[in-house]
Amino acid sequence: MSELKELEGVEIEDTFAEAFPIKVARVLITAVNEKWALNAAKEATGFGTSVIMCPVEAGIERTASPEETPDGRPGVFVLFCAPSYKTLEEQLLARLGQCVLTAPTAAAFNALSEEESVKTFNTGFKLKFFGDGFEKVGELYGRKVSIIPIMGGEFIVEQNFGAKEGVAGGNFFILAENQASALLAAENAVAEIEKVDGVITPFPGGIVSSGSKPGSLKYKFMHATTNHKFCPTLQRRC
Amino acid sequence: MSELKELEGVEIEDTFAEAFPIKVARVLITAVNEKWALNAAKEATGFGTSVIMCPVEAGIERTASPEETPDGRPGVFVLFCAPSYKTLEEQLLARLGQCVLTAPTAAAFNALSEEESVKTFNTGFKLKFFGDGFEKVGELYGRKVSIIPIMGGEFIVEQNFGAKEGVAGGNFFILAENQASALLAAENAVAEIEKVDGVITPFPGGIVSSGSKPGSLKYKFMHATTNHKFCPTLQRRC
Amino acid sequence: MSELKELEGVEIEDTFAEAFPIKVARVLITAVNEKWALNAAKEATGFGTSVIMCPVEAGIERTASPEETPDGRPGVFVLFCAPSYKTLEEQLLARLGQCVLTAPTAAAFNALSEEESVKTFNTGFKLKFFGDGFEKVGELYGRKVSIIPIMGGEFIVEQNFGAKEGVAGGNFFILAENQASALLAAENAVAEIEKVDGVITPFPGGIVSSGSKPGSLKYKFMHATTNHKFCPTLQRRC
Amino acid sequence: MSELKELEGVEIEDTFAEAFPIKVARVLITAVNEKWALNAAKEATGFGTSVIMCPVEAGIERTASPEETPDGRPGVFVLFCAPSYKTLEEQLLARLGQCVLTAPTAAAFNALSEEESVKTFNTGFKLKFFGDGFEKVGELYGRKVSIIPIMGGEFIVEQNFGAKEGVAGGNFFILAENQASALLAAENAVAEIEKVDGVITPFPGGIVSSGSKPGSLKYKFMHATTNHKFCPTLQRRC
Repeated sequence: MSELKELEGVEIEDTFAEAFPIKVARVLITAVNEKWALNAAKEATGFGTSVIMCPVEAGIERTASPEETPDGRPGVFVLFCAPSYKTLEEQLLARLGQCVLTAPTAAAFNALSEEESVKTFNTGFKLKFFGDGFEKVGELYGRKVSIIPIMGGEFIVEQNFGAKEGVAGGNFFILAENQASALLAAENAVAEIEKVDGVITPFPGGIVSSGSKPGSLKYKFMHATTNHKFCPTLQRRC
Repeated sequence: MSELKELEGVEIEDTFAEAFPIKVARVLITAVNEKWALNAAKEATGFGTSVIMCPVEAGIERTASPEETPDGRPGVFVLFCAPSYKTLEEQLLARLGQCVLTAPTAAAFNALSEEESVKTFNTGFKLKFFGDGFEKVGELYGRKVSIIPIMGGEFIVEQNFGAKEGVAGGNFFILAENQASALLAAENAVAEIEKVDGVITPFPGGIVSSGSKPGSLKYKFMHATTNHKFCPTLQRRC
Repeated sequence: MSELKELEGVEIEDTFAEAFPIKVARVLITAVNEKWALNAAKEATGFGTSVIMCPVEAGIERTASPEETPDGRPGVFVLFCAPSYKTLEEQLLARLGQCVLTAPTAAAFNALSEEESVKTFNTGFKLKFFGDGFEKVGELYGRKVSIIPIMGGEFIVEQNFGAKEGVAGGNFFILAENQASALLAAENAVAEIEKVDGVITPFPGGIVSSGSKPGSLKYKFMHATTNHKFCPTLQRRC
Repeated sequence: MSELKELEGVEIEDTFAEAFPIKVARVLITAVNEKWALNAAKEATGFGTSVIMCPVEAGIERTASPEETPDGRPGVFVLFCAPSYKTLEEQLLARLGQCVLTAPTAAAFNALSEEESVKTFNTGFKLKFFGDGFEKVGELYGRKVSIIPIMGGEFIVEQNFGAKEGVAGGNFFILAENQASALLAAENAVAEIEKVDGVITPFPGGIVSSGSKPGSLKYKFMHATTNHKFCPTLQRRC
C-alpha cells in the first residue's frame, strides 16, 4: 500500500512506479570545450524519448570535468537505451557516426568498464572505414582507438564500447495548482536529477507531459502504445 | 571556373557546391515560452544530421514571435527533410508524436501553405488516437486541429501537414590559421545563417567537421557513404 | 479614469503609469561574437536597476547584427540613464573603462546621432590615456576613434558619445493566481519588450518584484526612497 | 626565479603574481530556481571588475544546491570585495537593496560563519525599513532575518552579514598563436576556476584583456591607474 508523507508542506504519496528492463551503453563525448561536447551530445541523443516510436531512449547523464576524461578535455556522459542489444549496437553506430564524428573537435570514449559490460560492440572499429584507408588504429590515453582523419583534424573514437542491463522507469506525478506551478516544480526536479550519476531524463527538457496507459480501450490497434512513459518527470536508472 | 574575391581581408573562392533534391516538411512548434518551444524543437530535430545514416535531416529554422503563431504564444519553426515522401511522413508522425506531444505545453502547426505543398500528411489525425476516444477534432485559430487530452492539459496538433520539394546542400569550406580560428569563424557563420528564412544547418551546432566524398577508393562496400555533407558549415535551402 | 479591456481572456486595466525625465546615453558594444559582446554589455550595465541607490539605470536594449555595426562584428546596444548629465558622463567613463575596455575583443561606439544628441561627452578621448602614450587617435569606419594597445590586441573606442533626454517609467502590474504564473507571465512580457527599440528593462532579468511608494509613512528619513520602480515588469522608453 | 614547466605540450612559466589585501563579504542568494538566483546575482555583482574605477570587485563564486541553502531552494554564492570595510558595507546595502530585494522570488543570506568574520554589518536590519512598518524581524531556518512584504510576496534577508580579509590578485598570462586560440584557452580556464570554492573572476566573462602597469610614464595624473588587473584570466582568492 502506498504511504502519505510530507516534505516542506507538500504532500507526497510514496507508491510504486512501473519499470522495464532495457539494454544500455554509456559513452563519454569530449570536445575542445563544454559547449561543443554538449552540442555533439544533444544531437546524438535527440529523437530519443521513448522506444514506443523512437529507436532508442537517450539523454545526457552529466558533464565531466577535464580530470575525468581520457584526453583531459571537457566532456559529457550520455546514455543510450534500447529494447535489444541488436538495436542498441545499430543505433550506437549511427549516432556516433552521424552526430559525434561530424561534430567539430569531438571525440568518443567507452564509459562502461569491462567488468560492468555484458556485451561489447566494435563501433569504433566500424567507424574507422570513414577514413578510407588513411585512418590509423592505435593506443591513446591507455585505450585502443581509431584515429580518423577528417577536415577538422582527427576524430578519435574508442574501438570497443560496452553495454549492460538497465532499468527504464522510475517516475512521479506532480499535482499542482496550475500548469505554471507544475512546470516550475518539474523543472526544479529535473535540475536535481541531473546531479545523480547513471540516470537520464530522456523526454524534452527532462519532463513528459503526456502519460500513457497499458493499451487503448477504444483503438485496439494501439495495444503497444504504452508502457513506460508517464509522469511530469521521468527518472531512469541504468 | 571559380573566381577569387576578397571580403574584409579574407580571400573567398566563389565556386560551386553540390546539392541534391529532398522532400521537406515545415512545422511550427509553440509553447508557453520560447524555452519550452526550443526544448521540444531540439528533441524533435535531434539525430537528424545526414540521411546517410539518420532517418531525416532536421533542424531549427528560426524562432517565431507570438504575432506569427496561430495561438499567440512563442514558437519555433523546424524543417524535416527526407529522401522520400514516405520516409518524411513516417518520421513526422514519430517525431511529433514522441517529441512534441510529450513536451510540456507544446503544440504543433503546419507551416507550409496549401499552395506551396505538393503532398499533405494527416499526421494530426493519426496522433489523435493517443486520446483513446477522449480526443476531439475541431477548429482553432482558423485551423482544423486534433485536441488530445494529456496529463499536462491538452495537446493541440493541426490535422494536416504539407510537404514540398527542397534542396539539400549549399556549403562552404573554411581554411584558417588553426582549429580555434576556424571554429570561431564557423560559429559566427552559423549565427548569421540562422537569420535566413527557410534554411537549416542540421549538423551539431550547425557545423560539420568531417567532409565526405563520392564513394570510397579502398572500401568498396562504402559506395553510398557520401554525397551531401561537407563543409565546416552547411547551409540548406528548402 | 482607467478603462477595462480584455486580451485573450485576461482583464486589462489601461490606466496611467508614473514616469520621470532622465538623461540617456546609447552605446553599441561589438565583439568577436555575440557571446562576448553580451559579456561586456552585462558587466557594464550591472548594478544599474534604480537610481534610488544605483549610480545609473542601465540595460541591454537589443543585439545588433553585423550589418548594423561599424566594424561588421556582432554587437549589443545598451542604454545608460542618469538623473543628471554630470553623473551620466562619469558613469559612462567608469563603465566603458572598467567593463568594456577590459572585455576580450570588445569595442565601443556611440549609438546616438549628432542630431539626436543634446550633450556630447569625450569619453573615448579620456580613455585613450590608458594607452600611456602608445595609443593613437584616428578614423575608422567613418568615425573618430581612440585606438588603445592592450594585451589582447587593440581597444577601439569612439572619441565622442552623445546623450539626450529620456523617460524613466512605464510599467504594469501583473495580478495572477500564484507566484509561478505571475513569474511566467512577466518573463514572457520581458521577452517581447526586448524586441522594442529604444527600451530597456533594467531590473534583474527585466522584472521588479518590489514596488515602492512616494515616501514612507513610518520612517520619515526615507522620503526619497521611492518614486520610480514598481511593477513586475518595467518598461523604459528613452 | 621563475621556473619553466610543461603541461600537455604547453610551456608554463611558474612565476609570481601581484596580489593585494582586500575586504570581502560572502552572500548566498536563493530563488525559486537557479535561473532567478543567477539573474539576481549577476545584477548585484555587475559593474564590479576593478576597484580602480568600480566601487567593488564582485562576482559569482558558484551555484549552491538546495541541500546547501537555508531555505532548500537553489542558490548562488557571490563575493563582494572592497578596499575598506566602510565601502564594503555601503556597497552591500546598495547592491542587496537594489538588485536582490527587487529580484522576483530572491532571498539573501550571510555566507560567512561568525568565526571567519572580522566585521559584521547590519545590512538586513537596514533593509527592513523598505517595509514601511509592515516588516517583521524573526527567525527562519535558524537565522535571524528581516521579512519584508513586497509586491511579489515577502523578501527574506538575514539581519547580519559578516566580512573578512581577503586577497585580490592571482592571475596568469596566456601567450597564444592568435586571438581566437587565446580566447578559447582563457574560456576553458575560467570554466575550471568556477569550480574552485572561495574564488571569483570578476572581469567580464571572467577574462581581462587589458593588463595594467604601476603608474604611467607619460601621463603623471594616472599614478593610481594600475595595480591589480592583468592577465587574460584573473583568479581571486578570498
